[in-house]
Amino acid sequence: MKEEILSIVSADAVDISKLKSLLPDMNTVDIAEVFENLEKDKTIQLFRLLPKIIAADVFASMDSDEQQIVIEALTDTEIGEIINKLFVDDAVDFIEEMPANVVKRVLQNVLPVKRKLINQILQYPDDSAGSIMTTEYVELPEDATVQKAFDDIRRTGVNKETIYTCYVIRRDRLLVGVVSAKNLMLAKVDDRIGDIMDTNLVFANTTDDQEAIAGLFKKYGLLAMPVVDKEQRLVGIITVDDIVQVIEEENTEDFEKMSGLRPSDEPYLKTSIMKLAKNRIIWLLVLMLSATVTGGIISSFEDALAVLPILVAFIPMLMDTGGNAGSQSSTLIIRGMALGEISLGDLIKVIWREIRIGAICGIALGLINFLRIFLMNGKNLLLSATVTISLFITVLMAKSVGCILPMVAKKLKIDPAIMAAPLITTIVDSASLIIYFSIAKVIFHL
Amino acid sequence: MKEEILSIVSADAVDISKLKSLLPDMNTVDIAEVFENLEKDKTIQLFRLLPKIIAADVFASMDSDEQQIVIEALTDTEIGEIINKLFVDDAVDFIEEMPANVVKRVLQNVLPVKRKLINQILQYPDDSAGSIMTTEYVELPEDATVQKAFDDIRRTGVNKETIYTCYVIRRDRLLVGVVSAKNLMLAKVDDRIGDIMDTNLVFANTTDDQEAIAGLFKKYGLLAMPVVDKEQRLVGIITVDDIVQVIEEENTEDFEKMSGLRPSDEPYLKTSIMKLAKNRIIWLLVLMLSATVTGGIISSFEDALAVLPILVAFIPMLMDTGGNAGSQSSTLIIRGMALGEISLGDLIKVIWREIRIGAICGIALGLINFLRIFLMNGKNLLLSATVTISLFITVLMAKSVGCILPMVAKKLKIDPAIMAAPLITTIVDSASLIIYFSIAKVIFHL
Repeated sequence: MKEEILSIVSADAVDISKLKSLLPDMNTVDIAEVFENLEKDKTIQLFRLLPKIIAADVFASMDSDEQQIVIEALTDTEIGEIINKLFVDDAVDFIEEMPANVVKRVLQNVLPVKRKLINQILQYPDDSAGSIMTTEYVELPEDATVQKAFDDIRRTGVNKETIYTCYVIRRDRLLVGVVSAKNLMLAKVDDRIGDIMDTNLVFANTTDDQEAIAGLFKKYGLLAMPVVDKEQRLVGIITVDDIVQVIEEENTEDFEKMSGLRPSDEPYLKTSIMKLAKNRIIWLLVLMLSATVTGGIISSFEDALAVLPILVAFIPMLMDTGGNAGSQSSTLIIRGMALGEISLGDLIKVIWREIRIGAICGIALGLINFLRIFLMNGKNLLLSATVTISLFITVLMAKSVGCILPMVAKKLKIDPAIMAAPLITTIVDSASLIIYFSIAKVIFHL
Repeated sequence: MKEEILSIVSADAVDISKLKSLLPDMNTVDIAEVFENLEKDKTIQLFRLLPKIIAADVFASMDSDEQQIVIEALTDTEIGEIINKLFVDDAVDFIEEMPANVVKRVLQNVLPVKRKLINQILQYPDDSAGSIMTTEYVELPEDATVQKAFDDIRRTGVNKETIYTCYVIRRDRLLVGVVSAKNLMLAKVDDRIGDIMDTNLVFANTTDDQEAIAGLFKKYGLLAMPVVDKEQRLVGIITVDDIVQVIEEENTEDFEKMSGLRPSDEPYLKTSIMKLAKNRIIWLLVLMLSATVTGGIISSFEDALAVLPILVAFIPMLMDTGGNAGSQSSTLIIRGMALGEISLGDLIKVIWREIRIGAICGIALGLINFLRIFLMNGKNLLLSATVTISLFITVLMAKSVGCILPMVAKKLKIDPAIMAAPLITTIVDSASLIIYFSIAKVIFHL
C-alpha cells in the first residue's frame, strides 16, 4: 500500500480522490514512512491531503527533517491544530530537533496550557525520567466509585496516551495507588477506588536516570510507570514504547563505547562527516599514543631481536590473540553487568572462572600453535616452546585483565563499557610483548 | 522489605505470623528475588508459606534453579495447582529449563487442555513467534455488542494475560480485527464490535522470526500482537514484556558475535566453564591461525628489517590504530543496519562517507604521529614520513574495510555482526603491514 501511495503522489498529476480513499485505512506509521522518499513540494502536498483526524498521528511518526519541511510550510493556525493534538512527549521530541526560529513559532501557536507543559518537560535534564515522561494519563480521586471512574475515563480518555493504568491521587495530588483498566472492568460499579487500588507502587522521580527506569520496566514487566516530583506528587507517566527506545539507545551507547567511539544519539546517515570524525578521533588518538609504549618495549629488546630476528614474526599473532581473548571476556562481563546478571560482589568468582576458562583456551590454542610452529619452522623446539608458553600466559593474562578492568571501572563509578576492547587490547599488547621477550631471553639465554 | 523477609526466613526460628503479614503487600517479583539467597530447605519452607493467590505469580518470576528445587519438593496435587495457574508462556519458559523427569511429572499433573497448549507451543522452533506467544487473550465475535463484550471480559478476563486489546474473529476463527479496551470503554454499549473494530492489523505468523517481530513492535509502538497460523486463524498473542526480553537477547547476541564469541542464551554465571571455553575457542583458533598470514608477511620482509630494525617498533602502533579505526566503522554500520537506519542501498553513500571520515582522522593522527616520531627519534625525516604515510593509508583502508565487510555480509545473507572487530582486525593487520613495508622499501630504497 505504501508503494501505491508513493507512486500516486510522485506522479505529475496527483490522483487526489484515490489518495483520499486509501489514506484513512492505512496505519499512520506507514503513511509517515512515505514522506521519507518525497521531494519538498510533494511532502507539503501530501500532508495537506491527510484526513484531519490522522494528521497529528502521522506528524508524530515522521522524521524530524520532514517535520521541519511541513511545519515551515503551514500557517500559524494549522501549526496550532497539529501541535495541540500531539501527545506532550511527542511534541517535546519534535521541538528538541527544531531550530530556534521554528521552536519559537510553534510555541507561539499552541494552547497556553500545552505550552506550559512542553516548557516544563524541556527543562528536565537529558536522559532523566522527566524528559521522557508524558503528561497525558488518567487520574482518579481515591474516594470515587468505579462507576464514576468509567464516566471520567469516557469523558477525558480520548486524549490520554494510555488508559490501561489509572493513577489514584489524594486531594493534595499525592500518588497513593494504581488501578488497572482490567481491575476496573472486573470490579463492581459501586466499589470505591481506594478499596480496589493496588498500593504496591513502582514509580520514578523526575530526576531518575532513564537507564535505571528501563531496568525497572524489565524487572517488573510494566506497561507504564508513574513519575512523581520531590513532594511525591504525580506529574506524569512513562510508557513502555518510550522505554523500548531507551533500551535501544542505551545498547547503542554501549556498542559505541566498546568500540572506542564517543556515543552519539543521531543516526549515522544524518550525522555530519565532521561530527563523526570528531567522535572517533579522540579515542584513536589516545590509543595511538598509548601504543607508543608497545613500540618502546620492542625497542628495549632490540638486542634480542638482532640475535633472533624470527621472533618478530610471531608478534602480531600474540598481540591479536591476546586482544581477542581479552575482549571476549570484557564483553561478557560488561554485558552481564548491564543486564544485572553480574554484580560487583561476584568479582572473585568471576576472576576464578576466567582463569579456568583462560587455562582451557590457552592449552587448546597452545597445542595447535606448538604443532604449527614446530612443523613450519624447521622443527625448532626452543622457538616453538617460547611462542607457545608466551601464548598460554598471554591468554591467561588477557582473560584476567578483560574481566577485572570493567568491574574495577564499575566500582570506581566509571562506565564499564569504555574499558572494553580498544583499551584492553592496548594493555594486553604491552603485557604480552614483555612476557614474550622475557621468556625468549630465558630460553635462548639472550 | 526484601531484606526483612530474607532475615526472617534465614533465622533458625522463622516468625511465620510476621511473614504472613508482610508477604501479601509485596510485589511478586521482589518476593521471587528473595529465593536467590536461600538454602534449599528454606526455599521450600518460604514457598509453602506464600499466600495461594500469589504463589503462581511468584513461581513464574523465580530463577529456574529455584523453580526446580520447589517443584521437586511439592506433591503432585500442589504441582497441578501452581502450573494450572501459570500463563501458558510462563509455563513453557519454565518447562524448557527443566530436566526430562521433572517435565514428565509436571505435564502429568496439569489439566489436559493446558497440557495440549503447552505441548503445542513447545513444538514451535526456537526464536519463532509461536515459541514466545501465549494463548491467553480475549477474543470477541464480530457481531457481539459492546455490552456483551464487557460481560465476556468480566467473566473470562481474570485468567487472561492482557485484556487491553481484544481480538475479533469470525466463526471460522479467522482474525478480522482488533478492539482496544480504550475503544470499548469509549463506545456505546449497544455498538456492534464489527463496526468499532480496527481492521488495520499488524500480525505475525507462528513461524516468523522473533527479531523481525520485535522490529514491528518498535515501529508501530505496539503493546501486543496477534499470531495466526497458516490459514490466518488466531492462535495466540505476543506481549510487549516478552518483546523487551527478545530485544535484549538479540542485542546480547550481537555483542557476543562482534567480540568473536559463539552466542549463548545462558547468563554468564550460570554457564559451565567448559561451555564458556567452547564458545570462545572456535573464533580464537580461527583468528590465531589467520594471524599466521601476518607472520608470513613480516618474514617475507626480513631483509628490510635486517637493514632497518627500528621499523619493528612501529608495527604494534600501526596494527592497533588500524584495528581500532576499522572496528569503529564496522560497529556503527552493523548497529545502523540492526536498527534499520542503514540499508544495503546506502552502500556507495556509506563508503564515500567513511573515506572522507578516514581522511580527516588519518590527517589528524598523521600530523601528531609525525611530530612525535620526528622529535623522539633523532629528527629522522625519512622514518617519520614512512610511518606517517603508512598510518594515513592504513586508517583510510581500515575505515573502508570496516564499512564494506558488514554490508557485503548482509548482502550475502550472513549475519553482519560476525564481520566485526576480530575479523576486521586480522584483515587490516595484514594489509597495514604490506602497506608499511612497501612504503619503507620505496622511501629507503631497500
